[in-house]
Amino acid sequence: MEFVTGVKEKDTHEISDILGREKAEGSVRVNGAIHTIRDMGDFAFLVLRKREGLVQCVYEEGTTDFSIKDFKEGMTVLVEGFINEEERAPLGFEVRITNITILSEPEKDSMMPLPISKWKMKTTLETKLAYRPISLRNIRERAIFKLQEGIVRGFREFLYSKDFTEIRTPKLVAGNAEGGANVFKLEYFGKKAFLTQSPQFYKQTMVGVYDRVFEAAPVFRAEKHNTTRHLNEYTSLDFEMGYIKGFEDIMDMEASLLAFIFDYLKVKYEKEIKILDVTLPDVSKIPAVRFDDAKVLVSEKYNRKIRNPYDLEPEEEVLIGQYFKEEYDSDFVFVTHYPSKKRPFYAMDDPTDTKFTLSFDLLFKGMEITTGGQRIHNYGEQVDKMKARGMEIEDFSNFLMIHKHGMPPHGGLGIGLERLTMKLLNELNVRETTLFPRDMSRLEP
Amino acid sequence: MEFVTGVKEKDTHEISDILGREKAEGSVRVNGAIHTIRDMGDFAFLVLRKREGLVQCVYEEGTTDFSIKDFKEGMTVLVEGFINEEERAPLGFEVRITNITILSEPEKDSMMPLPISKWKMKTTLETKLAYRPISLRNIRERAIFKLQEGIVRGFREFLYSKDFTEIRTPKLVAGNAEGGANVFKLEYFGKKAFLTQSPQFYKQTMVGVYDRVFEAAPVFRAEKHNTTRHLNEYTSLDFEMGYIKGFEDIMDMEASLLAFIFDYLKVKYEKEIKILDVTLPDVSKIPAVRFDDAKVLVSEKYNRKIRNPYDLEPEEEVLIGQYFKEEYDSDFVFVTHYPSKKRPFYAMDDPTDTKFTLSFDLLFKGMEITTGGQRIHNYGEQVDKMKARGMEIEDFSNFLMIHKHGMPPHGGLGIGLERLTMKLLNELNVRETTLFPRDMSRLEP
Repeated sequence: MEFVTGVKEKDTHEISDILGREKAEGSVRVNGAIHTIRDMGDFAFLVLRKREGLVQCVYEEGTTDFSIKDFKEGMTVLVEGFINEEERAPLGFEVRITNITILSEPEKDSMMPLPISKWKMKTTLETKLAYRPISLRNIRERAIFKLQEGIVRGFREFLYSKDFTEIRTPKLVAGNAEGGANVFKLEYFGKKAFLTQSPQFYKQTMVGVYDRVFEAAPVFRAEKHNTTRHLNEYTSLDFEMGYIKGFEDIMDMEASLLAFIFDYLKVKYEKEIKILDVTLPDVSKIPAVRFDDAKVLVSEKYNRKIRNPYDLEPEEEVLIGQYFKEEYDSDFVFVTHYPSKKRPFYAMDDPTDTKFTLSFDLLFKGMEITTGGQRIHNYGEQVDKMKARGMEIEDFSNFLMIHKHGMPPHGGLGIGLERLTMKLLNELNVRETTLFPRDMSRLEP
Repeated sequence: MEFVTGVKEKDTHEISDILGREKAEGSVRVNGAIHTIRDMGDFAFLVLRKREGLVQCVYEEGTTDFSIKDFKEGMTVLVEGFINEEERAPLGFEVRITNITILSEPEKDSMMPLPISKWKMKTTLETKLAYRPISLRNIRERAIFKLQEGIVRGFREFLYSKDFTEIRTPKLVAGNAEGGANVFKLEYFGKKAFLTQSPQFYKQTMVGVYDRVFEAAPVFRAEKHNTTRHLNEYTSLDFEMGYIKGFEDIMDMEASLLAFIFDYLKVKYEKEIKILDVTLPDVSKIPAVRFDDAKVLVSEKYNRKIRNPYDLEPEEEVLIGQYFKEEYDSDFVFVTHYPSKKRPFYAMDDPTDTKFTLSFDLLFKGMEITTGGQRIHNYGEQVDKMKARGMEIEDFSNFLMIHKHGMPPHGGLGIGLERLTMKLLNELNVRETTLFPRDMSRLEP
């Protein structure tokens, strides 16, 4: 009988193995994809793309049976050779090849559809997305999603440290949590199912179980918006917590969360921060302004009429962002007390003025990246608000079960991962920071 | 202007704060949900449910204006009091209440639908699922999903340590990766979309970008199976890695992964391991047997006819599990070299016998919890296999882009999280280890 006993010792070297040596010398075995070839006649630079970066290798004609002309971008190879310190090489060393094995080859007649080995590909977003599987091989492009990994890791690490429990809630649901028509429907064994627009009901439910919960998972919105900031599928970073004194506790938690994430990126994703030239924002002191006050401030400073007192237009969000950048040098601003009619039925109204809710949005460089607030925990209060909105109580009996049998005062928020990444990188289109974006015209690749 | 500056210092105590003190004494402030009340006449035990466990509190009639009769299960409260060492209390201490504040109340006339404060609720699975939001408040029930958090955390921690990158792939897709009819369809802005059955194409794609990738995310199967082991939505723990020498590298990685996860649970989820009375299996030496050999071994030992040489029936999986438990004392067995006709078009055939593939399943206590293997990386080989199966090459141009422009030899696997949890806990139905199961008759709660 044969037995599987676990990962064997490596017989190849990663970049960190080489840089980690006391001296960059000795013989190495390195695999990778040929990212680019610079043919110098008698010899060639073969630059290998590895997960940690690019390794410059030097192949002298005649070293093996292969001719320089035999190599092609997109091949994967195993090179053996020795380390040569070389200041001009990106990592400070190069590998002088003594032997090379071809592990795989691209199609014979294929041509790279994009100049992925260039620092910036200088092509349209449309083209980059059409060739996404290949354009992501560009060093700058892939750094975006490595950094995004860091944001999600930081999110989780922080919340674990604050005793939150990670949950996994269903994406196929019978009801429509947020209300409205922007929901994808499908046939489910003779019944109607929806794709979840948010884990709202489930995360509130799980506060009754674990007190504090979070989830980082896809949500789906059938919105017919074709803008630079809307996606039809995105990643929502959600948390929900019980035993709060007010919605301010949620904002405090988010401020600490963002501070943790940015510190985490600085330490653990230094390489990507550098590649993408990111300036990490200061979140030690985030201004908080009431929704109605924010509208007035912006209207006065920028001489702009308030057209709709119950909603923020995207242009107003931009101006609010600008105002707090100019007046308080802050990239972030919490806008609080949104009008009740613009918030879902589970939002808690402000007892001092029920036209407004105990809720907030967080704007980052003039764009909403978070919506949050306190939720109704009392059964009667929740039922009354639903009735006032003309909702059928029976349709929500599974959700109302938690209020019926007792819920602590609680609240939470959802952060749009792709938007947060977009604003952090100063990108102008959320598709730039979405691995495989889904919009009205895009279902593939 | 007001500013949000982060989480304030706590003014209440968690169980670990109290147990962490040098001596369990002094005054405390503890919030929680009233899990159960034992009315002793002059005084009552109020047992509070907190995220870390249950805290026994003692309320003497007359301490405040509240009478014992005023308290109700499902209320959430803030108690102030002092710590009293008490051997008979579950944590070795109790809180003698000096003041109590009611934070929230359940509906006046509500009755708990299930005896959640019992150690085992002794009710049917059907009832537990119908009242899932409440039944999860049972200490044993919630421990299941806390432990499941640990499995996913361990999965991620291990793969990060092996230089895998975490990816987030779309769940709405244009194509049907695995083939077959078991896929949910929906209208997507005038087009047809599918819910992804697996991140297969995307994870292979991302191997071309990061060499090693993983994802823990929902997948959807429209299977008309109503069994104890099928779900229509489940969590797939996927990884995919490049520069492999063979599919054995994938099995090695999985063996190390499982060992890491079980060690991780032992250290970090000791409490849940104890509550659920879990015996962590030994994975230091997992037997590996060829598919065809396994069928013969089982047929001979258990005197069972081989009916279908190209497939494993669930009963055969159980017997293979039994065989390797009896003969090698192993809860796990890798079954390798599945027949080509039972594997998808991207599976690499065994060059020594193309009727079989370089693939495997992992059985845990007689149930398949993993499917994996080496994938085709060569463009021509992939196209030929697709043509031989009568597939339309044009439909897969986005997927084939990666082969066309070069892919390293690679492979990977997918682990069913809920099944792994089920077998670890020796549960008989996968719904027991699914937070909110989705099956043919169940879309809520």
